[in-house]
Formats: sequence, C-alpha cells, structure tokens
Amino acid sequence: MSNPTSQLLDSIADVGIDHTRGGYSRHGFDRTELELREWFTAEAGARGLDVRPDRNGNLWAWWGAPGPDAVVTGSHLDSVPGGGAFDGPLGVVSALVAVDLLRASGFTPRRPLAVVVFAEEEGGRFGVPCLGSRLLTGAITADAARALRDADGVSLAEAVRAAGVDPAGLGADPEAIGRIGCFVELHVEQGRGLVDLAAPVGLATSILAHGRWRFRFTGQGNHAGTTPLEQRADPMLPAAEVVRAARRAASTVEGSRATVGRLVPRPGGTNVIASTVDLWLDARAPDGVATRELVERIADDAEQAARDEGCELEVTRESYGDSVVFDDGLRDRLAGLLGDVPALPTGAGHDAGILAAHVPTAMLFVRNPTGISHAPAEHAEPDDCARGSAALADVLRGLAG
Amino acid sequence: MSNPTSQLLDSIADVGIDHTRGGYSRHGFDRTELELREWFTAEAGARGLDVRPDRNGNLWAWWGAPGPDAVVTGSHLDSVPGGGAFDGPLGVVSALVAVDLLRASGFTPRRPLAVVVFAEEEGGRFGVPCLGSRLLTGAITADAARALRDADGVSLAEAVRAAGVDPAGLGADPEAIGRIGCFVELHVEQGRGLVDLAAPVGLATSILAHGRWRFRFTGQGNHAGTTPLEQRADPMLPAAEVVRAARRAASTVEGSRATVGRLVPRPGGTNVIASTVDLWLDARAPDGVATRELVERIADDAEQAARDEGCELEVTRESYGDSVVFDDGLRDRLAGLLGDVPALPTGAGHDAGILAAHVPTAMLFVRNPTGISHAPAEHAEPDDCARGSAALADVLRGLAG
Repeated sequence: MSNPTSQLLDSIADVGIDHTRGGYSRHGFDRTELELREWFTAEAGARGLDVRPDRNGNLWAWWGAPGPDAVVTGSHLDSVPGGGAFDGPLGVVSALVAVDLLRASGFTPRRPLAVVVFAEEEGGRFGVPCLGSRLLTGAITADAARALRDADGVSLAEAVRAAGVDPAGLGADPEAIGRIGCFVELHVEQGRGLVDLAAPVGLATSILAHGRWRFRFTGQGNHAGTTPLEQRADPMLPAAEVVRAARRAASTVEGSRATVGRLVPRPGGTNVIASTVDLWLDARAPDGVATRELVERIADDAEQAARDEGCELEVTRESYGDSVVFDDGLRDRLAGLLGDVPALPTGAGHDAGILAAHVPTAMLFVRNPTGISHAPAEHAEPDDCARGSAALADVLRGLAG
Repeated sequence: MSNPTSQLLDSIADVGIDHTRGGYSRHGFDRTELELREWFTAEAGARGLDVRPDRNGNLWAWWGAPGPDAVVTGSHLDSVPGGGAFDGPLGVVSALVAVDLLRASGFTPRRPLAVVVFAEEEGGRFGVPCLGSRLLTGAITADAARALRDADGVSLAEAVRAAGVDPAGLGADPEAIGRIGCFVELHVEQGRGLVDLAAPVGLATSILAHGRWRFRFTGQGNHAGTTPLEQRADPMLPAAEVVRAARRAASTVEGSRATVGRLVPRPGGTNVIASTVDLWLDARAPDGVATRELVERIADDAEQAARDEGCELEVTRESYGDSVVFDDGLRDRLAGLLGDVPALPTGAGHDAGILAAHVPTAMLFVRNPTGISHAPAEHAEPDDCARGSAALADVLRGLAG
C-alpha cells in the first residue's frame, strides 16, 4: 500500500538512474545530487522549514530558530555507484514525513528541531565516506578535503565552488555542532537482522571500525602476445592475490569484513599487460586493533605477491573511522519511547557514526527483506517505511516536546 | 640521428596522446585515427599516389593502376589504449619513405604497387583485432562486425557511417584481394629477438594462434560492510582466480601465453560487493590444439571458482585466429634480396597474418631495444628505422621491378 513516505520517495525515483549499472548513481555535488538538494529545499520550504547550507555544503532545515540543544534528524541523498533507492533518501524522506505527522497532531517543538542532509556520505565521488560530517566535525582537515579529486580530476574545492559553496570556508564548524543537542538518523537496514527478528524497526548499538586503503601495483606494461612469461612484471597477478588475501584474512579475524569492489588496470587493453593496477580495499572489524591486524595481513600478502612478480606496491590509507558505540542513554530513551524494539550492531558506516564522537547520537533501522544494500535490489516494504516514519515522529515528539 | 623515417613518424607525434595512460590511444574510426587517415591521404597524395578507401574502410594508395598482381605493403595507424608510437605507424611511414627512396633512385615499378592502411588492427575499440583485414578476407562476417559495439555502445555500423563508409558495403571483398600479388608488412619487433641477434632488421617465420575470450562472472551486488562472508556471492573472487589460472596454464602449455589486461567490476564502488565482473583473456599458443587446451584449463578453473563462490560464469569467444606460417617462397625471395637477415617467430597478431591465408605474405621486423611494446616505452632507434625503410625499398624494388 502506498503512503506518504513511499510517495515522497517515489517523487525522486527518476533522478540519477544509472542505465549502465542499474540502480542509482548520485554523487556529492554532481548534477543529480544538486537536483535532489533543490528538491529537498523545496519540500522543506513547503513545510515552513528554514533551509540553510552550512560552511561544508550540508543542508539544514530548521523548525524554529536554529539551536542550541536542537533535536536533529536526517541522512544523505547521494548513493554508491549503481546503488539502491533507500540508502540515504529514506532517512531524509522519513524526517520530512515525521514533521508532517507532528504538525498534523498539533505538536509544537519546545526544543529547536532540524532535518539535515549530509554531503557525499558514500564517498562515491571523492573516495572519503561521510565527507560532509567529517568536515563538519574536523575528522578530516579542510586542506586534505579540498585536495581530494574525483575520477575526472575535479577537486572537491572546484566541485563545491561550482555548487555555490566557498571552498575557503570548508572545515570544522564548532558553531554548527554546538547547536546540536542530539542526532537521530533513520536508515534502511543493510543486513537481515530485523528480518530474522520479525521486527519492522530497530535501534543501532554500534558500528564496526572501517577504513579504505588504495593498493597501487606498478609493473611493466608490455605486449600480451610477445612477452615471455618469465620476463613479465604483470601487476594483475599481485592484485588478484589481494582479492583472495582479503577474503582469507577476513575469515580469520573474528567479526571482520574485507572487500575489493573496485579495481582498475591501466592501460586496460585486452592484448596489453597492465603497467599499473589500482585497487581499493574496504576493511572493517569490531575495533581498531582488529582492523589493523586485518589490513596488515592483507598488505603482507600483497607485498609478497608483488615481490614474486617483480612489481612495486604502494599502500595508501584513504579514510579510517574507529568503531562507534552509540550513546546508551539516548538509546534507552528511544527504546522507552518506542516500546519493544530490538537493538543491533551494523557493519555500515553512517554520518551518525561520525557525529557520535561529539553529541549523543542514535539510529533507527527499517527492515530490509533481503538484506541487500548498495545494489539496485535494495528494498524496504512501503508498510515498513511508514512504520519507520511514525517511529521517528514518536522519537522527535518525545525528545523535542 | 634524425632521418626521413623518424621525421615522418615525428610529424604525427602529437596526434592521439593519452594524457591519462601515457603513450597513444588511437582507435578505429575515432577522431584521432580519422586525423591520421587524413594525414596519410595527404602524404600519399603528395607522392603522387592515388588514395582510395575500400568497402571496409581500409585505405589503399596506388602507384600505378590498381592490381592485379600488385606488390602491397603497409600496416595500420590505430593503437592499443596507451600504446607506443611505432606499432603500426612505423610500417606505414616506412612504406611512404620506401616509395621516396625508389623514386629518388629513378625506379619505376613494373607491377602495380600499393601502400595500405588497415582499420582497427588492435581491436582497441571494437574488441576484434585485425578488423579491417578480417572483413576484407571474410574472416569475420559483415553482420557480426556491424553489430560490434565500443565501450560507449556505438556500433561499428554507426562508426563507419560517421567516417563516410557505407555499413551495407562491409564484408568479404574478393575483388580487392584479387588485386594483391603479395603483401609485405614492416613492423617494429615486439620482443627481444633481434636485440639478442644484434640484427637491425629481420623476417618473420610464423605467428602464434591467438584468441580473445570474455569471462563474465555474475554474483550478488551488496554492501561491503554489512554482508557476512558466508552470505556473499562476490564475482571478484573467481575473477581473481582466472588471473592466476591464466599464468598457471600458460606455464604448463609449451610456448603459450595467457594474459588478463582488462577487468571491469560493476558497479565498481569501493564499499560495494560487485554484482558482475567482466574480464578478457588473451590466449596464444603454437597451434590451435594447444590454444584450445590452454583456454579449457583456464575455463575449468574459472568454473570451479565460480561454483565455490555461488557465482555464474559465461565464457564468450570474441575472436580467434589460427597459427600462421608465412610463405616460404616469398621469405626466401626477401632473404635473397636483403642478404644476411635472421628469420624469427612472433607471438603478436598482424594483418599480415590474416592475409597470409589468401596471398603470399611476408613481414619485416625492425629491432626494438627493450622488446617492450603496447606501452609508452615502445621504441626503435632512428638508425634502425632508417635501415627498415631502406630494406623495405630493396624488397619492393626486387618484387615490383
């Protein structure tokens, strides 16, 4: 059955469709994400909210005067390449619908209330996930962020300038953080935890530590037909070893995950031995020690494989976020407001995980029938989406009332 | 020292530079290759040659009335992605310089003489190597060729039409082949055979059998952080196994080579388990039986690895050419004309290899100091290039005089 949450989500269903990969490709400050920002600004404006961008290109829609001690909710509008319709937008849409539900019930917040849209949460364009919230909190420096480049060589500085954000203003924004009393992010679940518990909505307990490392193997580009095997320095060989080593290491470090989903041989011709291969390792584990152990094992195997093939290896950490345990007090408060809802951990990073180091933070998950996420098949049933918005409204009423 | 061959090669040094990969990216019927065709037409015209495209977009520059029993030389102007300056253009440039040398010596051919430029020899755009000569000889059907698509989805039919070639006219051209008495292609060597023999110029004896196979692994796209290892169907795992299996199989099948230089995970996000991976296997061996054995071993390992990961595998042969033994009589004739030049086999495919099934065909190789080819570092010394042009002139004088 359709309902306001599903309808609002449907209203952006044609923005950023990826006809090559399937699903959606919406990336920070690109044409499609800017179109979604305009849509958000219009939708928030229609609800009488006052929309203001912050210095880092995140959008804040205020009900009442901004801060201090505000109750903030929201999520992001960008996607991974070829991602699903729910990861990010569901949290934004549910926040707008929760505002509608509160207004319809005659509620007026006693604390300021805001809906936030964070920029480039997936890192699909500039490589660093949660870029908007990292900049806001100083988890990445403005200089490091400005220098990030997308696949076409466009820097973040250039991209934000084109979107009307002054790149000189990027960076930690204690004033904006100072306005947040607490932050609650609603998100589609990215696993089968709630399915197994037969629960439409749940709360988050923790997030795995998570980082991204780029492995660059350099060999000798050459002719695939004429170069004898023993004269080759083919970087595809050690790169292939990393894919296997990642799986091997993750299966020995308890509770960890390691994935290679992006790999680029250059020049990339069929009849050409590659001269370089770049691949990105996504590694996650319950804490920083386990993550370090995981990545070190993989890097050791990579070094050995590179040596065996006469190739060079350079490993660069592109991002890292320690494990997050969400605020117990806030979670207990939400559990009290929502009644019988389960609490569960997740392996996925979120802006809420970045903010958790600065303000009391909580997350609401909405059931995902297959658990599939970051893929076109990502889904949540309309009824569960409606339940999520209703739960978020209950939470906001309880916190801001 | 500079000389006419090096100077003519230098005159196209700024066409098709690849600023991302290094070297050159010049592909069949793209902007850069069309620019090189115009350059060739002008250079041939300036030498009084009559330039005519054939029905398949190959260019023929005639000295004297076209055929029959013509002595034909030439090569191609396209490159692999990020290729060198010599592979292809050296044969075209040397042919033009050889015409100059013959004219300067007062020579007039008694047989018709032609310089040919074959289209899309590398298969860098449409995937099938020697596309122009395959079409000419009927080694690929017109329907199969017209349906080939480049990475942007442009069909060969659309590409040739845009270049002024009627796609309805593509296909076997017995009339054009009937004009060829013999074909001699000069090419930079793509190995270290001549270096080891301290010889600037050599003759070809044979070409390995050679094919390209696409392996498409299909798994389940999903979230890299939340999907437990045991629930994954990650096509990168079996794809990595193919890279290793190719090396393993090639090291057990005598005289063979197997390479994966192109691999594309989709959607290609860092925090996304791929849903599909396409990779291309370049496999070569001394004959068809050995090539089949090589590819079957690799495909068997790939099937097993796909099953282990719960992925599907589809293997498609995109091109195949049997091994080629060049015409003994013509090679003996060239050896007689050139004196003491070595003869050696090669693993590289050439238009000469396609034509060899139809007309007496020979190849001249020019020394390559490192053996590197299909890479920006590909090189031939100017003195050796001059020697190559002089040798080609001697050959043409002997054959056409």
